Amino acid sequence: MIHLSLIGIGTGNPKHLTLEAVEAIRTQDLILIPNKGAGKDDLAGLRRQICANLLVDTPHAPRIVEFDLPVRDPATADYRRRVDDWHDAIAEIWQAAITAHLPTGGRVGFLVWGDPSLYDSTMRIAQRLRPRLAMELQVIPGITSIQALTAAHGVPLNRIGAPVQITTGRQLRDKGWPEGCETLVVMLDGDCAFQTLPDPAALTIHWSAYAGMANEINISGPVPEVSAQILETRAQARAAHGWIMDIYLLNRTSPA
Amino acid sequence: MIHLSLIGIGTGNPKHLTLEAVEAIRTQDLILIPNKGAGKDDLAGLRRQICANLLVDTPHAPRIVEFDLPVRDPATADYRRRVDDWHDAIAEIWQAAITAHLPTGGRVGFLVWGDPSLYDSTMRIAQRLRPRLAMELQVIPGITSIQALTAAHGVPLNRIGAPVQITTGRQLRDKGWPEGCETLVVMLDGDCAFQTLPDPAALTIHWSAYAGMANEINISGPVPEVSAQILETRAQARAAHGWIMDIYLLNRTSPA
Repeated sequence: MIHLSLIGIGTGNPKHLTLEAVEAIRTQDLILIPNKGAGKDDLAGLRRQICANLLVDTPHAPRIVEFDLPVRDPATADYRRRVDDWHDAIAEIWQAAITAHLPTGGRVGFLVWGDPSLYDSTMRIAQRLRPRLAMELQVIPGITSIQALTAAHGVPLNRIGAPVQITTGRQLRDKGWPEGCETLVVMLDGDCAFQTLPDPAALTIHWSAYAGMANEINISGPVPEVSAQILETRAQARAAHGWIMDIYLLNRTSPA
Repeated sequence: MIHLSLIGIGTGNPKHLTLEAVEAIRTQDLILIPNKGAGKDDLAGLRRQICANLLVDTPHAPRIVEFDLPVRDPATADYRRRVDDWHDAIAEIWQAAITAHLPTGGRVGFLVWGDPSLYDSTMRIAQRLRPRLAMELQVIPGITSIQALTAAHGVPLNRIGAPVQITTGRQLRDKGWPEGCETLVVMLDGDCAFQTLPDPAALTIHWSAYAGMANEINISGPVPEVSAQILETRAQARAAHGWIMDIYLLNRTSPA
């Protein structure tokens, strides 16, 4: 029997780890760490560093095994199909690694950026192993980049009694502002979709890059006033680090 | 100068505390704990217990001071006004307690259920102190009941690339299902608004009460199949504990 733990580790601040996550990391037999390839090395490096720090004095420290993530096949035109194929390929690699290192069963853990439930593939990949391995799945919640964003800016996520929509840059660009909701959190937005919205003077943005990490950057203000600054800062930071993770909160003044 | 920390503590599982929260609790001069009155004593009790456990071996342990929360004035008909007045009254009590216990300044912390940004008043009350006290505000993110819910059920929050709306029972009851979004998280719903939605056969619910706590209850399934069970379980649990906190995720099958 395989006991598989998906361990939310927060957004890069080692102090985001919960006591539950610390305990889980220390009690695995095996921890699998994906290498995402050039440019995203900071992320694998951070996972390695978190493990190294936590496992210094652990008597039966888990074995740490790294594996190369496959790339999504650009020849597959359909987005959903491309993602599904990619998840299938990762599940194959997981299965091979687990079988090789835990042939008689045991505890295997994955360190998941943020929380395993939010815009993350790990849970979907884990579900693919169910028909192939006798396994038990445990999810350990982690601080998401949404909490890191609101903490960095010291602002509430919602207005009193009001809804909040969590969405992606693609959704916002393709479908526009969702009706009936004056607060949005936008993730996975490589194209800064906040530039494309009508009536920008009614919008306030709280933007963070690398939220929770040592190199966190925060900019906030009315969209027309800070939009250019965010674009420039984002481009420079991305060039300097080789990658960027950013997120923002948009508040719209209700129409009179 | 007052340094005010709003410390997210997760949803009742002491292991939800982050390393950052543990450090913050241990390094305050003063921790203020609200008493919410009869029936909600479990919550103040849990905060007291978390402090007691963490502070056992702390050399300069903070002073723990409890205060009675005022009640909202039912004579104020307007909901927003009633909440605003209530926040003003709480801010007065905070200010009096801080001035009394830290007359020359220092560090004061509040333990906030879940995360300080999400359907919580603490940040709004803290902002009211800005004009009255020289203060610095720090927000420490915590595990929200949303993460506790998805972890308990082992399900993703979002579908691939799709949006999620976080809303309240009142919003869902008054305004119906928000268009353009097939996944909802519903909080603050004393009336089980999922019963009121059209086409229940298209809806799947993941419901948790006391998510993350020792007495966590989880029910999931198609709404028509589990609705009665949730209502009955909820009523029994509320009667047994004197209070309930519950949350649910609704997924709607996209119309063909």
